[in-house]
Amino acid sequence: MEADRVPTHPDVRTIPLQQVLEALVDPVRRSIVTKLRESGEDIRCGGFDLTVSNSTATHHFRILREAGLIRQYYVGTSRMNALRRDEVDEVFPGLVDAITTAHRMSPHPA
Amino acid sequence: MEADRVPTHPDVRTIPLQQVLEALVDPVRRSIVTKLRESGEDIRCGGFDLTVSNSTATHHFRILREAGLIRQYYVGTSRMNALRRDEVDEVFPGLVDAITTAHRMSPHPA
Repeated sequence: MEADRVPTHPDVRTIPLQQVLEALVDPVRRSIVTKLRESGEDIRCGGFDLTVSNSTATHHFRILREAGLIRQYYVGTSRMNALRRDEVDEVFPGLVDAITTAHRMSPHPA
Repeated sequence: MEADRVPTHPDVRTIPLQQVLEALVDPVRRSIVTKLRESGEDIRCGGFDLTVSNSTATHHFRILREAGLIRQYYVGTSRMNALRRDEVDEVFPGLVDAITTAHRMSPHPA
C-alpha cells in the first residue's frame, strides 16, 4: 500500500519548543540535522555515516520527523530526508542555525 | 568561611555543547535563563517566581552554573544570578538568544 509508505508530517506551528529541543539534545539527531543544514541537499537515510544500528537510526529519524525538523519521502526504495528549515525558522527564528553552527564549531561535539 | 559561599564557575570555552543543551532542555531552567535575558539585570534566586521547591530550584541553578550559563555571587545573604551571555555567545553564537526568544514566543512554552 503506497499510502503506508508516506510518513505523516505535523504542522511545525503546532509543535512545542520542548519537543524540538528534546529532538536536538541528542548528539546523533543533532548530527543528522547539522549535515542536512550544511549540505543544503536532501539525503537518504543511509547517507549519514551514523554509528548506530539501522533500527536505532530509524528511531532517530522518526523523532526528528515528529518534531517537525525533517520531511521524509521516497525515491524508489530510498527514504530521503529534507530539513524543514524555513518552516522551523518561521516559528523558532535562528534556532536551527544556532544549534547546528554550535554543533559544527564545538570542540566537544558530544 | 567566606570562600565556601563563593561558587566556582567554569570557563565557558571548556564546556561541551551537549552540557549547555541539556541545561536548556529543562523548561524551568529555560525560564530562568529567559527571564535573565529579558530583564537584562541580575536577579536573586528568590526573584524568579518558580513553581518548584527551594531545593529543586537550587539544583536547577547549580546545573545552569556548571553549564556556564549563569554566574552566581552574594549580596549580603542573597544569592544573585547573572547571565553569562557575552561569554556563551562567543563560543555558541546566537544560541542563548534563539532559545530564549523561542521560549518567550512559544505558544506551548513547556
